Amino acid sequence: MLEINPHSFASDNCSGVHPDILQKLADVNHGHVPPYGTDIYCIRATTKLIDTFGDNVVPYVAYNGTAANVLALQAITQRHSAIICAETAHINVDECGAPERHTGCKLLTVATPNGKLTPELVAKHMHGFGSQHHAQPRAISISQPTELGTVYTPDELCALANYAHQHGLRLHMDGARLANAAASLGLSLRQITGDVGVDVLSFGGTKNGMMYGEAIVFFAPELAADFQYIRKQGLQLASKMRFVAAQFIAYLDNQLYLRTAQHANQMAQRLAERLRQVPQVQITQPVQSNAVFATIPVQITDLLQREFAFYIWDEARNEVRWMTSWDTTEADIDRFVNTIKQLLDRCA
Amino acid sequence: MLEINPHSFASDNCSGVHPDILQKLADVNHGHVPPYGTDIYCIRATTKLIDTFGDNVVPYVAYNGTAANVLALQAITQRHSAIICAETAHINVDECGAPERHTGCKLLTVATPNGKLTPELVAKHMHGFGSQHHAQPRAISISQPTELGTVYTPDELCALANYAHQHGLRLHMDGARLANAAASLGLSLRQITGDVGVDVLSFGGTKNGMMYGEAIVFFAPELAADFQYIRKQGLQLASKMRFVAAQFIAYLDNQLYLRTAQHANQMAQRLAERLRQVPQVQITQPVQSNAVFATIPVQITDLLQREFAFYIWDEARNEVRWMTSWDTTEADIDRFVNTIKQLLDRCA
Amino acid sequence: MLEINPHSFASDNCSGVHPDILQKLADVNHGHVPPYGTDIYCIRATTKLIDTFGDNVVPYVAYNGTAANVLALQAITQRHSAIICAETAHINVDECGAPERHTGCKLLTVATPNGKLTPELVAKHMHGFGSQHHAQPRAISISQPTELGTVYTPDELCALANYAHQHGLRLHMDGARLANAAASLGLSLRQITGDVGVDVLSFGGTKNGMMYGEAIVFFAPELAADFQYIRKQGLQLASKMRFVAAQFIAYLDNQLYLRTAQHANQMAQRLAERLRQVPQVQITQPVQSNAVFATIPVQITDLLQREFAFYIWDEARNEVRWMTSWDTTEADIDRFVNTIKQLLDRCA
Amino acid sequence: MLEINPHSFASDNCSGVHPDILQKLADVNHGHVPPYGTDIYCIRATTKLIDTFGDNVVPYVAYNGTAANVLALQAITQRHSAIICAETAHINVDECGAPERHTGCKLLTVATPNGKLTPELVAKHMHGFGSQHHAQPRAISISQPTELGTVYTPDELCALANYAHQHGLRLHMDGARLANAAASLGLSLRQITGDVGVDVLSFGGTKNGMMYGEAIVFFAPELAADFQYIRKQGLQLASKMRFVAAQFIAYLDNQLYLRTAQHANQMAQRLAERLRQVPQVQITQPVQSNAVFATIPVQITDLLQREFAFYIWDEARNEVRWMTSWDTTEADIDRFVNTIKQLLDRCA
Repeated sequence: MLEINPHSFASDNCSGVHPDILQKLADVNHGHVPPYGTDIYCIRATTKLIDTFGDNVVPYVAYNGTAANVLALQAITQRHSAIICAETAHINVDECGAPERHTGCKLLTVATPNGKLTPELVAKHMHGFGSQHHAQPRAISISQPTELGTVYTPDELCALANYAHQHGLRLHMDGARLANAAASLGLSLRQITGDVGVDVLSFGGTKNGMMYGEAIVFFAPELAADFQYIRKQGLQLASKMRFVAAQFIAYLDNQLYLRTAQHANQMAQRLAERLRQVPQVQITQPVQSNAVFATIPVQITDLLQREFAFYIWDEARNEVRWMTSWDTTEADIDRFVNTIKQLLDRCA
Repeated sequence: MLEINPHSFASDNCSGVHPDILQKLADVNHGHVPPYGTDIYCIRATTKLIDTFGDNVVPYVAYNGTAANVLALQAITQRHSAIICAETAHINVDECGAPERHTGCKLLTVATPNGKLTPELVAKHMHGFGSQHHAQPRAISISQPTELGTVYTPDELCALANYAHQHGLRLHMDGARLANAAASLGLSLRQITGDVGVDVLSFGGTKNGMMYGEAIVFFAPELAADFQYIRKQGLQLASKMRFVAAQFIAYLDNQLYLRTAQHANQMAQRLAERLRQVPQVQITQPVQSNAVFATIPVQITDLLQREFAFYIWDEARNEVRWMTSWDTTEADIDRFVNTIKQLLDRCA
Repeated sequence: MLEINPHSFASDNCSGVHPDILQKLADVNHGHVPPYGTDIYCIRATTKLIDTFGDNVVPYVAYNGTAANVLALQAITQRHSAIICAETAHINVDECGAPERHTGCKLLTVATPNGKLTPELVAKHMHGFGSQHHAQPRAISISQPTELGTVYTPDELCALANYAHQHGLRLHMDGARLANAAASLGLSLRQITGDVGVDVLSFGGTKNGMMYGEAIVFFAPELAADFQYIRKQGLQLASKMRFVAAQFIAYLDNQLYLRTAQHANQMAQRLAERLRQVPQVQITQPVQSNAVFATIPVQITDLLQREFAFYIWDEARNEVRWMTSWDTTEADIDRFVNTIKQLLDRCA
Repeated sequence: MLEINPHSFASDNCSGVHPDILQKLADVNHGHVPPYGTDIYCIRATTKLIDTFGDNVVPYVAYNGTAANVLALQAITQRHSAIICAETAHINVDECGAPERHTGCKLLTVATPNGKLTPELVAKHMHGFGSQHHAQPRAISISQPTELGTVYTPDELCALANYAHQHGLRLHMDGARLANAAASLGLSLRQITGDVGVDVLSFGGTKNGMMYGEAIVFFAPELAADFQYIRKQGLQLASKMRFVAAQFIAYLDNQLYLRTAQHANQMAQRLAERLRQVPQVQITQPVQSNAVFATIPVQITDLLQREFAFYIWDEARNEVRWMTSWDTTEADIDRFVNTIKQLLDRCA
């Protein structure tokens, strides 16, 4: 068990709930409303999601990110399909086989240097179409930002979407931290999803200040035709749905999601900048969102983890992952960097 | 879409969140804690669940009731098993086939007069053991209270549990409203679950004042051996788990669950008592929890639904279901009964 | 274990392989041909199936009847669908839950007096359309002949097909013994399937003289669009497919299937006629195919089973099922009836 | 569609049925026997399988190899398990996602130079034990011979089995061509399966002279505890099971399987030896069973395929696969090699 840490660098889901969101939960907590998504707050949340992502989208909400990914993928595949993703994808390494079990599909993985797929990397799995022995490639799933903190540019996304569509595949985006990508690129959520050809999006809220709740956004209504049943059968229909809706209302209102994401990104930049002055620490991935990947001297790892929770990403290289959050403070960063420096001095 | 009603009689999940529970959500919302169930609040919630249900239980939490039921059943069955339940069971009629889809099992249903199974009623499905052509009976699933608002006595539960165990089956209890049953019987939660032979329980909170969250309580640790994987693969592992835990802490603290359930039950009794004086309204099931089932003159149904949301249970008989909730007031009941009387006078 | 019986009445699948079919297996056994369904014999079998069922059909073959049923149903449903069938349907009682497990669907059963569904009987399950809580009715599955040996008339089939289609459902027919129904009605296979509105058919061969192999016949090509993948993923793609094809070629050639079925039916008629003279034996279902259902005195059951294998259908009533086969002889019938008479005399 | 070829090199499943096996099918075709595996021929086949693989084994039969693999794996895993296999494994590339769909498991693949796994290669997937986010490694699946025609030595198998067992995993062997491996090594079937630690085996017959039918052999009875249900629900229970049994009786009688396999292997050796004299043809894998992998000049590929069916294994390298069979003749080999030489001359 990780110790409680005022502000850790383990994951953005160690953080709590943004005060505006907590307040909204209280605001909607009066009287009776219909359950299961037909109340006025759900209508408002849906409207805000449509305002955000485009008039033609069909949004749904689910409890968590694994569910959003799995059910989105189920909606765009058949049981004999294959889904192409990066080896490092959350759906491949962190979801206990839920994608395979729920969709029936095979995951075809691709090794990547930085968590990003490209048409060239995907091409090796683009065969066997029409062969009854072969799970039929039907979807490409990418994470934006990737699990390595890197961010796809709109051009990269367009290229992948076009490639997918030319081969009859759909493009799914795991946007558990989508706001961080938008903040990083200085683009709107829509500009990096529907506008570049994404077919269905898992749009995260929990890691960026919500308590629970993720949206599934379909950019073509026909893809959502059966989703109400897929969600219910997928164990993701909330009865007191107004409280998921309330969070999305607050999250999208005045672009709260953007402010929280910008802050988290800035904290990652601050961390990276300060560490670039520490020669024993090598940053291993471009810092484009709220993650910093670095190799550190193995002798300080344990001592550092005693004070700040974080994960070892690659034991062989002693590469670590440090995540910042909407509530990480400059003081947190400074205290963390100072501790690293002190430990390096002590162990030198 | 049901209209917003200050206080409807449609379902207890139309109600909001009890103030003590909302306050607890705010109380735990500071600093960083580990995700996925290893934080201090989760430990406290687990301790409270163990204090409530017995030292030997293994409790888990999930997001909603359908998930609690489905994953509990998955834990105690194999893919070639059969699950025996009442025709009216929530798992049979309200979960969009999720039990079959997730467990792989066949549901074997039993018609009942009052929602309750008995050994005699179950017996018709107790055959085919050892036959490879036959889905093997492996679990009996009951609801306490039933979907018809009736409550099993401890003796009835014991009889079913013994019958199940004698035949090598497990007993699952869907306790989405378990607190209402306990309040009705004047017994502890434990006295109507583990003490009478229940093997695994879905313990509801949402309908009785929580925002989201249900517990799965295993009364034999070996049944829970793989449940952490079943839950994760079943899309029910919350990242910011402290907020589910916080709700259970508040729910179990000072028996809040009992006070809210007692209140809801009392409101149902008040409603039933007052309606017994109205000859055109026939109460059709014993009022033992927070539901009143009644047949009403068909000509007042629409008019009554314009002012108070509720469900038609059986169109053929014009039987309706009225649910009370933790926040139903005496004034709500009186206003509702008066409206019924006025409509009956007007339509006479 | 059932004893070996020269000619039992347990099931038509106790019989062996018709000599013409065995000969065909030898005839095609020379040289190398492509595997998996692209050889010349497969093309011939497909042609014969199209000749039999209509130019617009798409036929596939599978190993056995459970597979044909399950995969046919998978092709016409979604995972959140419901399938309506008789309580006595093979898919409900004899397939170890395979339909639920493979399709993900819920089976909605209907009690019937004679194994036949009617629009009136089906109507009780025709609700919940569009409700996310409700597995969506999507298919009606009937057996022709039924598991009780009764045979739907073309009018009855038309009525069911029309009813299904009017409600957006598909009609599946389990034709494990379809030839016996055709023989009984004096109609062609096509006249009781595609011509009356069946959407997909499991067309049996094994019970009527083949070694293994059943066909799945789609009466609308779009229903078969993905069936090659469904079959392969469903474990039913034979590598040396020519030997399945060879059997269907022989089975359909010169209407062998009809001659074998006519014979089996005649033997059932002979059995029924001779037993109508035995007052202690009451025939309980119309004898319309190759099954005779009857109640017999309980005291002769064991003794009779020592000489002739058969199944007890309903222990409570001591109702038994006697199946005749393509190889049942008149002498078998006479010996069986005489034995019954002798036992009745002895036990009198 | 591949053309009919008297003797092709496409696959051993292009061949027909060995005369001894066809004769046995006729021999058992008299009278009635109980269906579904309880007849006398099934008992004899079971006895022969036990004689072959050891007194402690529990054998079952299924229709085909994909089914044998998938159901064997289902028997030794849970839905949240992971199965480690070679990238080239049949279960990974040729079964249309059936393993994932039926077992619910994740396949974790390993790149190999020659189709063989080793403890060192497997090690990269041996982590995440006890983590709820991670599909739990539970089985290693190997093919003997591999899909590249190479054969594991007993020492290699022992090392893998020990490694698996030390980590709590089971070892599954896909033995679709097991007889060819035994013939190659000069060892008994048992010496390369149960004796070296295999837990469950798919034992193939179809590719080596049978019409249909594969066995699943459990080397620990407790692994087979539920297999009768797994098989039935997995659509693999034959009604006229005597005809599967008959084939295994003939196959195992007087080691027919060994004679057919030895012959096929010898034909592969003859092919390889003769081609080693042709400098433009490079054999790319050790020829240890009945497969020859080679790179050939691209300009002769099409012309050669017009006369002899075979598969391109790796288009990039123009690597081809030539399979020999129990019925390949020396004349076939000679004609094939001569054609290659002529084409090379003509294209030179």
